[in-house]
Amino acid sequence: VSDRIEVTAAGGAYPVLVEPGLARRLAGLLPSDRAALVIADANTAELLGTDLADRLGAPLFELPAGEASKTLAWVERACSAAAAAGLDRDALIVAVGGGVVGDLAGVVAATYLRGVGLVHVPTTLLAQVDSAIGGKAAVNLPEGKNLVGAFKPPEAVYVDPELLAGLPEREFRSGLAEVAKYALIADSRLFDLLRENSGAVVARTMDLMTAIIARCCEIKAGVVSRDEREDGERAILNYGHTVGHALETALGYGVMTHGEAISVGMEVAARLGLAAGVTPADLPARQGDLLRAFGLPLAPATAPATVGVEALLRVISRDKKARAGEVRWVLLDRLGHATAGHRIDPAVVGEVLAGSLP
Amino acid sequence: VSDRIEVTAAGGAYPVLVEPGLARRLAGLLPSDRAALVIADANTAELLGTDLADRLGAPLFELPAGEASKTLAWVERACSAAAAAGLDRDALIVAVGGGVVGDLAGVVAATYLRGVGLVHVPTTLLAQVDSAIGGKAAVNLPEGKNLVGAFKPPEAVYVDPELLAGLPEREFRSGLAEVAKYALIADSRLFDLLRENSGAVVARTMDLMTAIIARCCEIKAGVVSRDEREDGERAILNYGHTVGHALETALGYGVMTHGEAISVGMEVAARLGLAAGVTPADLPARQGDLLRAFGLPLAPATAPATVGVEALLRVISRDKKARAGEVRWVLLDRLGHATAGHRIDPAVVGEVLAGSLP
Repeated sequence: VSDRIEVTAAGGAYPVLVEPGLARRLAGLLPSDRAALVIADANTAELLGTDLADRLGAPLFELPAGEASKTLAWVERACSAAAAAGLDRDALIVAVGGGVVGDLAGVVAATYLRGVGLVHVPTTLLAQVDSAIGGKAAVNLPEGKNLVGAFKPPEAVYVDPELLAGLPEREFRSGLAEVAKYALIADSRLFDLLRENSGAVVARTMDLMTAIIARCCEIKAGVVSRDEREDGERAILNYGHTVGHALETALGYGVMTHGEAISVGMEVAARLGLAAGVTPADLPARQGDLLRAFGLPLAPATAPATVGVEALLRVISRDKKARAGEVRWVLLDRLGHATAGHRIDPAVVGEVLAGSLP
Repeated sequence: VSDRIEVTAAGGAYPVLVEPGLARRLAGLLPSDRAALVIADANTAELLGTDLADRLGAPLFELPAGEASKTLAWVERACSAAAAAGLDRDALIVAVGGGVVGDLAGVVAATYLRGVGLVHVPTTLLAQVDSAIGGKAAVNLPEGKNLVGAFKPPEAVYVDPELLAGLPEREFRSGLAEVAKYALIADSRLFDLLRENSGAVVARTMDLMTAIIARCCEIKAGVVSRDEREDGERAILNYGHTVGHALETALGYGVMTHGEAISVGMEVAARLGLAAGVTPADLPARQGDLLRAFGLPLAPATAPATVGVEALLRVISRDKKARAGEVRWVLLDRLGHATAGHRIDPAVVGEVLAGSLP
């Protein structure tokens, strides 16, 4: 099984290759005449990064695993490593890891010598179906997530579903939230496939997962090819993310995984869509069934005092995508189709949020 | 007197306006419907930045004057200030200062929310004729200068020659090195004008300086419009800069000004051009006459032990523009014309360097 998906970007098209076992062949696929720096975290260095760096004869830059490494200070350290290794403008940054590594490596590749090459080797489900595709890279500020970065399309994305075998259960299920999102916003047939085979999905059946990952990559590639800079259509990819991000911020990172927060965010968005008369009446329950089958939460498992409606609304109004404090919502208008730019009366948002929190 | 020069960039053209008194009218020229952050250093905040921020109703971010502020840590602080002020994607970064402020603000504008607007208000001669035009922005690493950054074309560059009145003498003369460079590489008539009026230039005669600055901006705008990413012609702007940068690195920043180092670099480049049979025999002396008239050095005023030939050659081979350690030189083939990409036997380079150092 092998899939090749083409992504159109301002600087030229790039391929996303999806194939079990691809990681083992990687050293032979990368250009041998260009100096490289492999960036990984402690886990992905052991999984693949150290071996790949050895085979490439390239230095490895290792950062601590976790969101706390997504800072300009770590970008600087990685750029210093590139400079110390003498990497010139022809060089290639090879990102081996999940979203944190991919984001950090993307910012490094966008800024070191004002831009060098980038290749993504995503090692989590979330990175394979989402963050490695589309060219968005950013690090965090004390003031919020992903506030400093760049558009940096990679030269190629190498997706090996076999790398998911060792992924912790909670992290795998977190990725399934984005998989469900693609089905909900763009592909009702994928939704049926997921719903009918949720057991095999959760069991990570290789052929099934390869097909699902390839389809998700195809959907994301299509959207970002048509709207690289998020002037329009790309916004639908943020389905569930407004409340999801607000939850992550309000709770503090690490309390819920990104996928768990997005899952709750999609539940809230479905209820909002219903309240706004955009989303069909049966959709919230059908969406909820799939998310539950994936072991994902529909409400945060915390006391209301920790993350109240007021606090969430405050964070939501500061969302990076808000303009002049006004939030635009992504809503489902039918299964497999979303539209962006919906304005909803803040009082309605408050009511729906109050009804959605524990 | 007012000049409007158009620069072509990948993201769209932008104007460079050159006009005495422009700074006083600036608040009225900037879009009133966009949030802004004014970035200045301690000196330029007093000169213009604080007043401009007040008139715009915008926050001022002040960094310490000097090269030591050109770091990712200061980029992060400025981005945090932008986030704390609630700046969204429509926002404008207004850089009021010399090369350090312009570079830092450029990196901030390129990366905050993955890119917001940028306007340059250059306050030094060097920034007015060089660094504010062309979209290059970068900060330093411990490993070297300008190693992390981006291409970030501004929306406009506002050049007010009256701002130069208070510039320290040494900094003004430093800018004259770049002025001389433009004449040498691109305009023999400008060379004659400078040579015949060097006294009035050094005295900063306003009408003359305005005409000279506008002509330099025109030359730079032409070169970077034809070659934004430095694949070819733009390299001629680096005349004198290979040895100049190496001197700055080897001596430590601040020992020589950028212009003084470039002046010495041009002297070495002229001798190299002569040795390579590219530069006419009378050119080094004519170039030296102009540089001396501007009060610029033709050799570093340090003991040979501090900055030996070997040390310089090592730094030169690590130059950002070197490919696989091989340096390509920019040489004059006649007065007012330069060509890039010259390879010169390292032994010849060593000899010429040895003959050029004190």
